Formats: sequence, structure tokens, C-alpha cells
Amino acid sequence: MTDKPPSPDMSPEEFREWGHRFVDWVADYLAHPERYPVLSQVKPGDIRRQLPPAPPLKPEPMEAMLGDLDNIIVPGITHWNHPAFFAYFAVTGSGPGILGELLSAGFNVNGMLWRTSPAFTELEEHVLDWLRQMLGLPPDFKGIVYDTASTSTFHALAAAREAITGYDVSEQGIAGPDAPRLRMYTSSQAHSSVDKAAMAIGLGRRGIVKIPVDREFRMDPVALEAAIKTDLADGWKPFCVSATIGTTSTTSIDPVAEIAEICRRYGLWLHVDAAYAGAAAILPEMRWILEGCENADSFVMNPHKWLFTPVDFSAFYCRRPDVLKRAFSLTPEYLKTAEGDSVTNFMDYGIQLGRRFRSLKFWMVVRYFGVEGLQARIREHIRLGKLFASWVAADSRFEVAAPAPFSVVCFRLKADDAANQKLMDRVNASGKIFISHTRLNDRLTLRFAIGNLRTTEDHVRMAWDLIGEFRGQTPNS
Amino acid sequence: MTDKPPSPDMSPEEFREWGHRFVDWVADYLAHPERYPVLSQVKPGDIRRQLPPAPPLKPEPMEAMLGDLDNIIVPGITHWNHPAFFAYFAVTGSGPGILGELLSAGFNVNGMLWRTSPAFTELEEHVLDWLRQMLGLPPDFKGIVYDTASTSTFHALAAAREAITGYDVSEQGIAGPDAPRLRMYTSSQAHSSVDKAAMAIGLGRRGIVKIPVDREFRMDPVALEAAIKTDLADGWKPFCVSATIGTTSTTSIDPVAEIAEICRRYGLWLHVDAAYAGAAAILPEMRWILEGCENADSFVMNPHKWLFTPVDFSAFYCRRPDVLKRAFSLTPEYLKTAEGDSVTNFMDYGIQLGRRFRSLKFWMVVRYFGVEGLQARIREHIRLGKLFASWVAADSRFEVAAPAPFSVVCFRLKADDAANQKLMDRVNASGKIFISHTRLNDRLTLRFAIGNLRTTEDHVRMAWDLIGEFRGQTPNS
Repeated sequence: MTDKPPSPDMSPEEFREWGHRFVDWVADYLAHPERYPVLSQVKPGDIRRQLPPAPPLKPEPMEAMLGDLDNIIVPGITHWNHPAFFAYFAVTGSGPGILGELLSAGFNVNGMLWRTSPAFTELEEHVLDWLRQMLGLPPDFKGIVYDTASTSTFHALAAAREAITGYDVSEQGIAGPDAPRLRMYTSSQAHSSVDKAAMAIGLGRRGIVKIPVDREFRMDPVALEAAIKTDLADGWKPFCVSATIGTTSTTSIDPVAEIAEICRRYGLWLHVDAAYAGAAAILPEMRWILEGCENADSFVMNPHKWLFTPVDFSAFYCRRPDVLKRAFSLTPEYLKTAEGDSVTNFMDYGIQLGRRFRSLKFWMVVRYFGVEGLQARIREHIRLGKLFASWVAADSRFEVAAPAPFSVVCFRLKADDAANQKLMDRVNASGKIFISHTRLNDRLTLRFAIGNLRTTEDHVRMAWDLIGEFRGQTPNS
Repeated sequence: MTDKPPSPDMSPEEFREWGHRFVDWVADYLAHPERYPVLSQVKPGDIRRQLPPAPPLKPEPMEAMLGDLDNIIVPGITHWNHPAFFAYFAVTGSGPGILGELLSAGFNVNGMLWRTSPAFTELEEHVLDWLRQMLGLPPDFKGIVYDTASTSTFHALAAAREAITGYDVSEQGIAGPDAPRLRMYTSSQAHSSVDKAAMAIGLGRRGIVKIPVDREFRMDPVALEAAIKTDLADGWKPFCVSATIGTTSTTSIDPVAEIAEICRRYGLWLHVDAAYAGAAAILPEMRWILEGCENADSFVMNPHKWLFTPVDFSAFYCRRPDVLKRAFSLTPEYLKTAEGDSVTNFMDYGIQLGRRFRSLKFWMVVRYFGVEGLQARIREHIRLGKLFASWVAADSRFEVAAPAPFSVVCFRLKADDAANQKLMDRVNASGKIFISHTRLNDRLTLRFAIGNLRTTEDHVRMAWDLIGEFRGQTPNS
């Protein structure tokens, strides 16, 4: 060999050395996430102020980067790994998942086509079939991994639009006078990603009808059918319903079986968003939450939320993959391969051509914990959620604001919004726990979400004690 | 502490031990990617056949996973890390980039809001400003990281649609009789992701006009203006042009300055796709390729293609971030924060709510190599591309099929398509190199793409020797 440049990449020896150092750093970090405030205490601009305004012309030592990690980056992290992270949906990666990501980055393959790494495509198909079995969904649910539930729902709506009969959306588009006036339906409690996806595909806000919910924040099927009928009479073209299992505010469960029957009757695509709560269906005693989902056209759940897989990993299932493919398949000459239709080329099923090797991490997570191990951990989180809810219910100063079927509890001080806001701000400023909020029945409501692998009953008790303590300092106490 | 489950996650000690083992595995892999056939030699179904049909109920040892990696996964990998990977766009990660991914997975934060990790948001803003400086783009180009260029272009088109004056797309949508009949323009050589994005936002194929190219595969601005005029006369609403710097087939460069002038005249959004070739603009001698881009409304280039950053990392710049935000900002109550508009909440600028901490890896890549180190490596790839092209040109049996301004060479045997196909199939079946193809002027054309960090002149020479050798076996020789 001639003309070899001295060191095209970090040498394997250097990678080994620094790899060990970085693994040690992550191991130390994961050993003691509680040493940091859970909610970052920096002010806007604090991080950028410490970074050089221009990129370095010359190479810098790895040692310097490790130092900056401790001194600049970590203080600006809100530690989702902290066992007292109780905000939003509390998600955790896990050791085997992190190592799976290391491997993916090492391989650095792009799984756009089967031939660009057969193991990529086949492992993705395979572990999504494992997950399908874990959830008890029928074999005709074909899986694909996207990055986030937002992207999954976007693809669901695009497929739903493609499925409209008697009109060629791919060719004609939906712009202009000869296109149908499309409408879709979701509950007033649905995730904002449904609105974003609907706006992205061109519906606009007026193309999304928000169906009211019952007292337990579940979509009202009678109101749904009434809305569809009214729209049909007014010349709209209803085409899709997005139901939710585990809404973001309260984790309420839409009555999917009834909604599916309405969709069948009116020929509407049914998408089910079970991004967070779907994971609970791996428990036999929670399997009921997916009742009716066997009749959905598409379904999303996120192993990166409550199945201990590092972000990002959203599992999307579609019972009509041919429709999804029709909406997104465009194979230019430079991507045609000899295998043709005998294999899955995942690029045909989505907007992204480039695809990261995400299935490795999920494969490792499932094997490391085993299905029973995953079940035990989720079961424990649900137990902790119910325990927290029982403490709230037993305290006359507080009220539980919504049913809590999973591991998220909505609650509030029996006081005005300002008092609740003040309570939340104080507990979060303590750096000891992090909780978030929502609005229910037009009242500020606090949310306590359990989902971290390292969260124990002690952490939950400490949080409740802290909330009680700070409550004593609110003006309305 | 009481009630602590025995081992909620892999313990830090176990993570350290297995982390070292996995780092060693990746180091060994990266030391000798040439020991494997570059194009995987497995047949469809070979991988899945070796995997258990159902997920394991009990935990499995990490040792078993490492074994399966060698025995099942690696044979099914098409090795993008192989220095003789010359297909598509040859991309490589790099040691520091892989370690950056390890850190991201370790932190496992979701950067949807500034407060959900201030260091996430501010580092992303910061390194994208570094990259902007490296490319010589003006300071009003505001950056955001998406996963792929397909997603970036999708967001560009959504913003372009939002920018239409006198019509509220977010509210009204584009379906129905009062909506404008939208049309966008791109060249016949543009990437399929432009079509996918246009179809996704609801234009349909008839909403995309393919402008012819000149003999060097560049969009013809005269034809572009003529198409816009014709459409205006026919009642269409032109709203966007997508130009390309470095098309996928031939890496041709559209005349952006002239196109920008047309866009200005007709009030059209100009998006520039420089996903692959944009990286070359970090060389002073190649800066000219971005001429006119300072007048673009949006611009995408992918550090995961030719800046040694592991997939995925697409850098999207927008000069009208307010419009992008209008298209995608919907802040539900549970995501409202006290910081308000004083900080960037990246979730407001895209369809994805969940966001991976991607900026760490790019930060580490730029610092490890330094800008001069990155320049030297890209300069070498361009030199190797020109060398390969010179060998093709000097061989009377072959012809160069298009100008090769970067590191991709389109060429063909002076023979029919069947002979070229056979040549390609044979060299790829050898497992020694991997090249791909396209069609130019309706003839099968071979593509030789250089972009791997470990590719040397020897690898390029070996490839050319191999192509020459197999050529001798074709029927038309």
C-alpha cells in the first residue's frame, strides 16, 4: 500500500483507549445520577457563553472534551436518568440499550434497502414481530421503526389519506377545487403531534375535529359519530380517526372498540396512538387496554418511552402496508436492486431515505431483561403510581384530578391555580424532583409520572414528602 | 432506603465491564473492515431464519449477544465502513463521532424544550453556527438538526407552503375549493426525497414540475421561468423551487444564483439541497459551489454524509425561522414553560416532538479533526475522484458519463446496458468492492463514490484494476 495518509480516523488503539474512558464516564454517571439537580439550574445563554464562537482550526485533545463534558455540558443537563424525574413521561434507556446504540454507531450502516444491510432489515422486521407478540396484536400488523411517535402518526395520516377511495391522492394531491375537503377526528385530549401531522399533510386546523371527552377524559363515541354525520351532510370527506390509549395529560383510554365500529361503518382509517401506555399491554393483567386495536389500521407505541430503550425508537404497525407503500414509494433508478419485491426495502415505507440501525438496541434490551423482566419493572411502576395516588387521595389538602390507570397521576392542591403553580415551581427549583403540569377542566393540574428504571418507592415517598412540605409554604395553605 | 428492587438496570459495574467488551469489539471491527465482503453475501431470509421466532421470557447473558453479533449479524452487514465501499454516497462515521453517540445514549435526554436540557438546545444552536461559518453562509441562517435530508426538505416545503401570502395554510389547509392549486419546481435530476416531501404535504405528483437539465445535468433556469409563467397563466400557484448542489446521480450543481433571482422575481421560496456536496464548501477552493445560496430561504447539508459524523445528522438552515415555526408550533398546556420566547424550544420547529441529543457527536468530530483536518480529508477524496476519472478517460474501453466536480464519478463501458449491468454485478459479487448505478440519457451508468475515511489511493487503484479485469469477461469485450 502506498500514499496512505498518516491517520485518516482515530486509530483503533486510540478508539479503544478513549472508548474505555467514555464507558467509564457513562458508568460513573449512571451510578450516581442523584448527585445532580434533576432540573438543570442554568439560565438561558449560560452554556453558549462558555463555548468558543468559532470552530477550532486545529485538532483538540480528547481529554479537553471529557473535561468540557463535566464542566459545561452536565450542568446544562436536565437529568432524565435521575430517579426523581417525574415530569412529562419519565423515560429511561438502560445499559444494554446504550451498548446497542454504541454498536449501531460503530456499524454506521444505512438500512434504506435490504441489500444495504440485510441484517438491518431482517432484524427490524423480527424484533417488531417480537414486540407485536408481546402486545398480543394479530400477525397481520406489520412493523417498521420510525424515530418518534410524531413521525409514526404523520405516516399513519398520510396512509389514511392515500386510502381514500375514488381519488388518486398521490397523483392529484389535495390542493385545488377538485380535491375532497378532508376531515379527521381525534379527541380534545389527543397529543399535539396529531394536530401537527394533520397540518403537515395539508388539512389545516379546520380539517381536524376535536371530539369531546367524557368525565374520565375518554373520547365520546356518540359525539364522534354525530360529528361525522354533520360533516358528511356539509360536504366534508371524513377519512380518519386517531384514538389514544394513554393520553398525554391524564393517560385516559379511548373506547377503541366502539370507535373501530364507527370507523368500519363509515369507511374511515383508524389510527391508535399508544405511544406511552402501549408498553403496559405486555402485562397479561393490562392486556385489556388494547381491546379493539385488532381492528385498527395503524398503531404506534414507543419502546423509547416505557420499554427502557434509549431514544429514539417508535414502533409503528400497519395492517395495510401496501397503502403506506403507495403513499411513499418512489424508487429512482439509483436505488433499484435485483432483489425487487422479494425483500422489504424500508425506504419504500416512509419519508426518510436514510435509516439508522435502531433494532439492535431493542433486541439487546429484550434479551437482557427477558419479557418477564420487562413485565416486572412495568408492574412495579404501576404499583408505585397507584401508591402515590392513594397518598394524594388520603390527604384532604389535595385531590386526584383524573383516573390513573398506569403510572401517571394527575393531582392538585385544593386551591387556586396560583397556589398550584407556586407549589410546582418550588419543588422543581429544589432540584430534588421534577414534576410537570397540564390543564384539566380549565384548572392547572400537576402531573406525577413514574417511568425511570431506578425509581424506587423511596423516591416516590421522598417526592410526596417534599410536595407536602412545600405545600405548607403556599399562601393558600 | 427500603424496597429497592435487586437490579433495576444493568449495574454500573456490569455496564463498565460490558462497555469495555463492546468498545473492544467495535475497535477490532474498525481495525479490519476489509476482512469482510463489502456487500453482504446472504440471501433473503438468511438472517431471520437464525433468530428465535418468539422473544425470550428469561434474561439472556450478554456473552450470547456478542456471539450472535459475530455469527448472525455481521454476515448480514453491507459494510459501509469498508474502504472499498464506493456505492451511493460513501459515508463514514469516525471514532469521536461514535463516542459522541455513546454519550447521547447515556444521557438519554429529550431536547424538546430548552428546559428539558439547556445544554442540548444551546449546543445544537452553537455547533450549527460553527458549521454555518465553515460553509461561509450568512449569519441570518438559523440552524436546526433533523435526522435526514428527506426530513429537512419536507420541513422546507412545509415552511414554503406556510409562507404563501394572502392565505392561511395552517388554518385553512390546502384541500377544498377555496385553496390555491399549488405547484413547486425542481430539476429532473433532483433527489426522490423532494417528490416524497411534496407528496407528503399534499401536492401530489401533478403539483411537482420537473425542470429539464442542460448537458451537464444542471437545472435550466430559462425552462424554469417558462414553466412558472405557463403555470401562472393556467391558474396554478407557484410557491417553491428546490435546487440541488451535488445531485444524487451525477453531483451536478444547479445554477443557484440565477434560480434565486427567478424566485425573487416571482416571490417563490428557494430551498437548496446540498446534502452531500455541501461539505466540500468547507474548502476555500470549493466555496464557489454555494454561490447564490445566501439568497436561499432554506438550505440543507448532511454532516452524516461527508463530514464523518455517524448517521443521523442533517443540518437544516432557514432564513425565515418564524415561518417554519408558524408551520409547526402548537404548544399544548403540558409543554408550556416559564422561559417562554426568551429561549429556543426546538419542538416548535418541526414535526418531531422527541429529539435525540445529536449535537454532541458533531461537536466532538469537529474538535477532534479540527476544521483543517476535515478540509484535508475532503480534499483528498476529491483528488482521488479526479484520479479515478482520469483513469476512466484514458481507457478507450470506457467513458466518463458526466462532469465529476466532487468525489463521485459516473462512467460506463462503451457497450450496451447489459454489458454494464454484468460488469457491475460481477465486481459487486466479488465482495471486494461495491459500486452502484444510475441512468443517464436513458443509459445504464455506473457510479463510483468516494467518501470513506479509510479509503486510500490503493483502494481506488485496486477497484479500477478489478473493474478492468472483470470487463475482460463481459461478452461485448
